[in-house]
Amino acid sequence: MKILSTTPKADGFSMPAEFSPHYGCIMIWPERHDSWQNGAYAARKAFVRIAKAISHSEKLTMLVSAAQYETARAMLPPEVRVIECSTDDAWARDTAPTFVKNAEGEVRGIDWGFNAWGGLHDGLYFPWDNDNHVARKVCDILDKDCYNCRDFILEGGSIHSDGEGTVMTTESCLLSGGRNPHMTKAEIEEKLCQYLGAEKVIWLPKGIYNDETNEHVDNICAFTAAGEVVLAWTDNENDPQYAMSKACLDVLQNETDAKGRKLRVRLLYIPEKPVCMTEEECEGLDLMDGEPTRDAGERLAASYVNFYIANKAVLVPQFGDVRDKDALDVLGECFPDREIVPIPARDIIIGGGNIHCITQQVPESMIDN
Amino acid sequence: MKILSTTPKADGFSMPAEFSPHYGCIMIWPERHDSWQNGAYAARKAFVRIAKAISHSEKLTMLVSAAQYETARAMLPPEVRVIECSTDDAWARDTAPTFVKNAEGEVRGIDWGFNAWGGLHDGLYFPWDNDNHVARKVCDILDKDCYNCRDFILEGGSIHSDGEGTVMTTESCLLSGGRNPHMTKAEIEEKLCQYLGAEKVIWLPKGIYNDETNEHVDNICAFTAAGEVVLAWTDNENDPQYAMSKACLDVLQNETDAKGRKLRVRLLYIPEKPVCMTEEECEGLDLMDGEPTRDAGERLAASYVNFYIANKAVLVPQFGDVRDKDALDVLGECFPDREIVPIPARDIIIGGGNIHCITQQVPESMIDN
Repeated sequence: MKILSTTPKADGFSMPAEFSPHYGCIMIWPERHDSWQNGAYAARKAFVRIAKAISHSEKLTMLVSAAQYETARAMLPPEVRVIECSTDDAWARDTAPTFVKNAEGEVRGIDWGFNAWGGLHDGLYFPWDNDNHVARKVCDILDKDCYNCRDFILEGGSIHSDGEGTVMTTESCLLSGGRNPHMTKAEIEEKLCQYLGAEKVIWLPKGIYNDETNEHVDNICAFTAAGEVVLAWTDNENDPQYAMSKACLDVLQNETDAKGRKLRVRLLYIPEKPVCMTEEECEGLDLMDGEPTRDAGERLAASYVNFYIANKAVLVPQFGDVRDKDALDVLGECFPDREIVPIPARDIIIGGGNIHCITQQVPESMIDN
Repeated sequence: MKILSTTPKADGFSMPAEFSPHYGCIMIWPERHDSWQNGAYAARKAFVRIAKAISHSEKLTMLVSAAQYETARAMLPPEVRVIECSTDDAWARDTAPTFVKNAEGEVRGIDWGFNAWGGLHDGLYFPWDNDNHVARKVCDILDKDCYNCRDFILEGGSIHSDGEGTVMTTESCLLSGGRNPHMTKAEIEEKLCQYLGAEKVIWLPKGIYNDETNEHVDNICAFTAAGEVVLAWTDNENDPQYAMSKACLDVLQNETDAKGRKLRVRLLYIPEKPVCMTEEECEGLDLMDGEPTRDAGERLAASYVNFYIANKAVLVPQFGDVRDKDALDVLGECFPDREIVPIPARDIIIGGGNIHCITQQVPESMIDN
């Protein structure tokens, strides 16, 4: 693995869209007792279900601690690759590398700086040193060269690419005080374009209400094709989500992408009934630094936008809500050639994210390093 | 990674000779302070030198603990792949899988039972659970299926294959009380033939004097081609090695291999001056279980036979002895198409083995799993 100090754009590399062909996907076995309730036993079953569904059409690599290796290996099917790797939690989207690809089909990783969603400013746990090493370790596992961008704090969940020059992100996250407060918006935009090989950044103002990642874009809006997005939505003007989604819709309706296209926006209604922590669920979480990580009644950032696009399937979170089926229908329309796989997601959302947050796609490569 | 309960022989797989084409080689970063003197700082330099020499002609994968990952990554060149893996020590020959291959060029691993060279009977350290998991982890890293042979205790250093149906081992090791004492010699021979896809086992009676592995074959005798071996030797009848090597020579001169060939035996003279621990070296080793692991004056099992055959090089241990050059010359004659690379080996032999013990070749594969 070469550590590269050039930029992907200068080298002719850019980030493919998630709906482009994958070699595979990276996941991380859940383990933290302050993130995953009751010792993570329910979460790991949910992760196994997701890993199995993904591995039907691409190579799934599960990273796991030494302590959990045997259990993970036994619970996962043979076609899933299980590899030991120290991490601080299970958010592969944010700690595994973002991958870029060139015209010849060579794939390389990007090692962004990681500080647990805000570092000492408003981050979610301390320390995060193991997580910050995951990207390079994954590049070595996959035998890919790696761009060094550790001086820039970014999580994979805070960006989306259409693979044709357009990147989408949220102001609430990328301009937050815990990421890169020394940089201007223009400088951040330039950094994204240089590293993702993009021409244009669409800035959505907000994400999902109470999303502790400072509102990652991957929970509010996603590309389903070039020029097409889905947006988390509610018609209930009294819901705090309404103004946030409306602000995003206003941007999307007035923006064009890097190719000059107007965007087609489909709405993905959030659960009708807010998804909130129960007292029993809170009792199943260890304290962190002497404090509870969740409170009873706390509203979780439940959104159907946090799906994962595998080669032949789209895995969609389900919350036992009347809106569950609507989400499957809308995404079925977006992805007519892929199987739409509903995934019960309560045991994942309790951890603070969803299916997209715990997965990171690896583009198909045409060149062996 | 499928765990296979069949045998390689039944499936048409056998162990290629070390001099056959490799995909690459597995090594493990040295770390134990009771194995490697002065915190392993000298040993790691020796390991880096070996990794670099091997990686000139094949892919070198270095397994390393989480704690040492950054240091190993920084000390090793980019072409070496560094992957996190928990181990109990650095003997890849004995803990990484033995690989077998079929006629179509598919490669699979074998997961032997490992008990630190004799378990509670006369093993060298406790516990050894991490080491015992290395073989499967490596198969997963390389995406190879894996034969389950955990009920049979074997280290890779205790076997050699000519790739044409002949396996060579030592009675002192394979019949030792700490390996498989419940099995007869005939049963052990049958096990070797089933798992290594062999027809014949040549049993050498002994190994190298004071070799704490119960005298692994890879320190006393090695195939350099089908029908050709090198044997560690001394003319000094007063040296305890003399009778041991003479007993092996008697067997080799009276044996034929699986193809019915007489063996050509070349002699590799052991160092003229015994390689012994100094008091200063002993002071650089931590105690294990309250006891010193080495004593001042202790003779180490130094042998030039413990070389590694890479695709385009042969790495030969050197001890600063008058016999160093003889070893290079003999091996130069054996491997005219490979570069003969002398490796200063004192910092490795102190750990209890040598270049062959810390490497495990992975045969070239023609089929992706």
